Amino acid sequence: MVVIKSWERYKHHLYNDDELGLLLDISRMNFSDQFFSEMTKDMEKVYGEMELLEKGGLANPDEGRMVGHYWLRYPDLAPSVEISKGIQDNIADILRFAEQIHKGEITGEKKQAFRNILIIGIGGSSLGPRFVRSALASPRDKMKSFFIDNTDPDGIDYVLGEIGATLDSTLCIVISKSGGTIEPRNGMLEVKACYQELGLSFAKHAVAVTQVGSRLAETSHNENWLKAFPMWDWVGGRTSVLSSVGLLPLALQGMDIINLLQGAKDCDERTRGTDTPRNPGALLALMWYYATQDQRGKQMVVLPYKDRLELFAKYLQQLIMESLGKEKNLKGETVHQGIAVYGNKGSTDQHSYLQQLLEGPDNFFVTFIEVLKDREGTSPIMAENSTSGEYLQAFLLGTREALTEKRRESITITVKEINAYTIGVLIALFERAVSIYALLVGINAYHQPAVEMGKKVAGDAINLKNKILDFLKVHPGKTFSIPEIAQAIQEEEHQEMVFKILLHLTINPEHGVNLEQGHPLPETRFFVDG
Amino acid sequence: MVVIKSWERYKHHLYNDDELGLLLDISRMNFSDQFFSEMTKDMEKVYGEMELLEKGGLANPDEGRMVGHYWLRYPDLAPSVEISKGIQDNIADILRFAEQIHKGEITGEKKQAFRNILIIGIGGSSLGPRFVRSALASPRDKMKSFFIDNTDPDGIDYVLGEIGATLDSTLCIVISKSGGTIEPRNGMLEVKACYQELGLSFAKHAVAVTQVGSRLAETSHNENWLKAFPMWDWVGGRTSVLSSVGLLPLALQGMDIINLLQGAKDCDERTRGTDTPRNPGALLALMWYYATQDQRGKQMVVLPYKDRLELFAKYLQQLIMESLGKEKNLKGETVHQGIAVYGNKGSTDQHSYLQQLLEGPDNFFVTFIEVLKDREGTSPIMAENSTSGEYLQAFLLGTREALTEKRRESITITVKEINAYTIGVLIALFERAVSIYALLVGINAYHQPAVEMGKKVAGDAINLKNKILDFLKVHPGKTFSIPEIAQAIQEEEHQEMVFKILLHLTINPEHGVNLEQGHPLPETRFFVDG
Repeated sequence: MVVIKSWERYKHHLYNDDELGLLLDISRMNFSDQFFSEMTKDMEKVYGEMELLEKGGLANPDEGRMVGHYWLRYPDLAPSVEISKGIQDNIADILRFAEQIHKGEITGEKKQAFRNILIIGIGGSSLGPRFVRSALASPRDKMKSFFIDNTDPDGIDYVLGEIGATLDSTLCIVISKSGGTIEPRNGMLEVKACYQELGLSFAKHAVAVTQVGSRLAETSHNENWLKAFPMWDWVGGRTSVLSSVGLLPLALQGMDIINLLQGAKDCDERTRGTDTPRNPGALLALMWYYATQDQRGKQMVVLPYKDRLELFAKYLQQLIMESLGKEKNLKGETVHQGIAVYGNKGSTDQHSYLQQLLEGPDNFFVTFIEVLKDREGTSPIMAENSTSGEYLQAFLLGTREALTEKRRESITITVKEINAYTIGVLIALFERAVSIYALLVGINAYHQPAVEMGKKVAGDAINLKNKILDFLKVHPGKTFSIPEIAQAIQEEEHQEMVFKILLHLTINPEHGVNLEQGHPLPETRFFVDG
Repeated sequence: MVVIKSWERYKHHLYNDDELGLLLDISRMNFSDQFFSEMTKDMEKVYGEMELLEKGGLANPDEGRMVGHYWLRYPDLAPSVEISKGIQDNIADILRFAEQIHKGEITGEKKQAFRNILIIGIGGSSLGPRFVRSALASPRDKMKSFFIDNTDPDGIDYVLGEIGATLDSTLCIVISKSGGTIEPRNGMLEVKACYQELGLSFAKHAVAVTQVGSRLAETSHNENWLKAFPMWDWVGGRTSVLSSVGLLPLALQGMDIINLLQGAKDCDERTRGTDTPRNPGALLALMWYYATQDQRGKQMVVLPYKDRLELFAKYLQQLIMESLGKEKNLKGETVHQGIAVYGNKGSTDQHSYLQQLLEGPDNFFVTFIEVLKDREGTSPIMAENSTSGEYLQAFLLGTREALTEKRRESITITVKEINAYTIGVLIALFERAVSIYALLVGINAYHQPAVEMGKKVAGDAINLKNKILDFLKVHPGKTFSIPEIAQAIQEEEHQEMVFKILLHLTINPEHGVNLEQGHPLPETRFFVDG
């Protein structure tokens, strides 16, 4: 073994919190001794701005919105009594509803107790509940969960196939803030059709999670769904897991949402503090800042050594990349900020990309997540007087050392065990780090202006497809080349897209579009059945 | 919509192969008109070297090994009759064994038919079979599959909990080339203990996939397991999915391994060709080369618009990063090569990190994977005369356009549908691109020298733990600080690791290590029960 880092540096920078069950080790990031004092002024400003944000300032100026996910676990912090009460009532409502479902007081149309939940949502409306579910799942869970998080017909069929005959005892949770997002809308319609085929009413198996007044709220009201739970204007999708979005499905599965909220609340309390060495959110954000400034596109590799945390990397990928990947700063200057996040779990990933981390480009830092408790009960000895869990820790320690030896930097977060409380702590820790980092680099972490771009062109593609179909249907049986079709519908500049849309139409049966055989592909001719 | 790319450029560079059911569009990579002619000489050299590799040259010089994964689907290509025959016999063996299992001719100890398989393997011995399984899974599958791919005790408990009472009808497939990898060894021992608790013989439910003469081969022989299937010296883990490693579990699940092999063989035939525009493997490798040379650490974002392909990104992450992430080139010069790979699936990921791809650092290129066939059967109309699958395509087209508009580059691979054949095509396509790219940049794509580093230090950590335990056990009931322990065992320079190991030991019950209350953590004192 090579001597790599001093015990003194480790001890000096270690953040250790017995109550949170959290240790944060930043000693393997090669910041200088002056780094923290150099950042003092910036951090003072940040703490002031965080206070304004938490008090309800318009921290998302582009959208004129408050940023309130910190209130979800500490309702008294909210800027108005209405909001505080809304949060408290919502948690009580969720617990009551879950109890009614578990007791069989609310049932499906056929009066069986609900056994499954099917969550129909995308992005923040899926990743958060999926991550926490997989972190906390146990054989004692009260309901089984399924997810539809895309508009892939085959993917939807696959999930419905898994639910199979138990659809009549499945509670569908449709999650969409605006109610206008196409993926959950399609998921809902596909699932609804499936209930209808079985002669069942979808409404009697459905609840909505959406903003008051949204299209989905209207639908659920008009169709008399079982219930609707609120989403709030001041909570963004990627920070919504501790709102109805996450709490409802988790409570239904029998998970301890009260301790989940408590963990987040306690972590918020620590990360609100202005004494930087005692603020793990600030330490984390400062390490990201140290690692990424003046370096083009440094990546964050997230490596939890625990199977239950495998989805955490994916959850953080959304939280961090959507929040921090921004072209402009708050002053309107072009900055192209962003940290790419990827990772799965250790030691598994050591057999995948560790080779590149040790020998490839030094353009990343690793965030290890260590869990001290191995399992419920006692472990057998495998070999060398060691348990499976001791080998797991040895792999983590070995990888850390090897990286350090190769001068690759890493952060290590240690939690005592995985439970609802510590998952709340981890969620809050990274949410706070994102807020602080965004203030350090001067960007809005709470909007996502570019996401609309792709959606807009997708809408154009749907319109283009309908124009193509309208044209072909006026000339049934007649064949046309791509240039002919594009010209006829005045879309000459979109011939590639016309071709791609037609190719897709010919493979699928719905619109009766065919391709004339015998031509090489892009030059082929298309027609609809006569 | 903005006019972005010309139809002419698209048509000119389009690779289209009706038999493979494959289209490859590189027109949105901004290479110059001269790029291909500039690369002609290099490519001639590459084609020559690929021929030598496929003929059995020592293409992995550091390890003195041939690189034979291309022979797995074309045994006649192998450099000796023994190897050809070995491959053919193995496929026949696998099919026969699967048939015997399906017919109930081979059963577990209690004479029930096997219903599940439990794959115990890590890295290439897990990711390949997992990816193909999720790509091809259907309600008609003949067996249900479970995976243990780590040495996480809680993760192992979770999988065994899911298998539950059906352990007696579960066939365990232990996959380890050397037989010495610790994670599958531990997985095997943990599972074995579980069978023993139920009064069952593990050996009567187990098969091995390993190299002849390995430790695992010996164990399986001595304990009289059901069978052992070979792994070969000339197939690396990350390219082993079309050997016993993937073929056995897939055949057992009832998947069409013959067409899987055929797809790979046919794709190999095309990608062996020396006419670059008609060689999709060469085109792909050249695009990687164009995108990554002279640019520090460019990333590859893999975005399949199909739920079934979600694990493909993870599979490619291993294949590409472990193969291409290298410090030295074949001449021994320091080059720090490597392409970071990440991604999950579209349109889901549009609600995650698309924001950063459009606005953040321009340090990546996207590889879209489009699947033309939406589902079995006909789709209902959702809205705007459009099916779920048409929306899915529209999102892909929209994202592509938005990226191009922001001058971000992308490649689009289109397959007609997902089946065993096209999955074989995709696997072979990327394997070939990796081989070609490695030759272009002059590195060995078939070794992983750095992976040993982490393992080595992990072994040191296990030894260190045992030294600590030995010391404490000589002084039961007596408390020691970290510096005292480290000094006593002459490991002063590893105080941090001593501390981390002790912390883990105190949380878990096996060795009776305790921590004295009332001290702040790193300064605390440890003891074993008296």
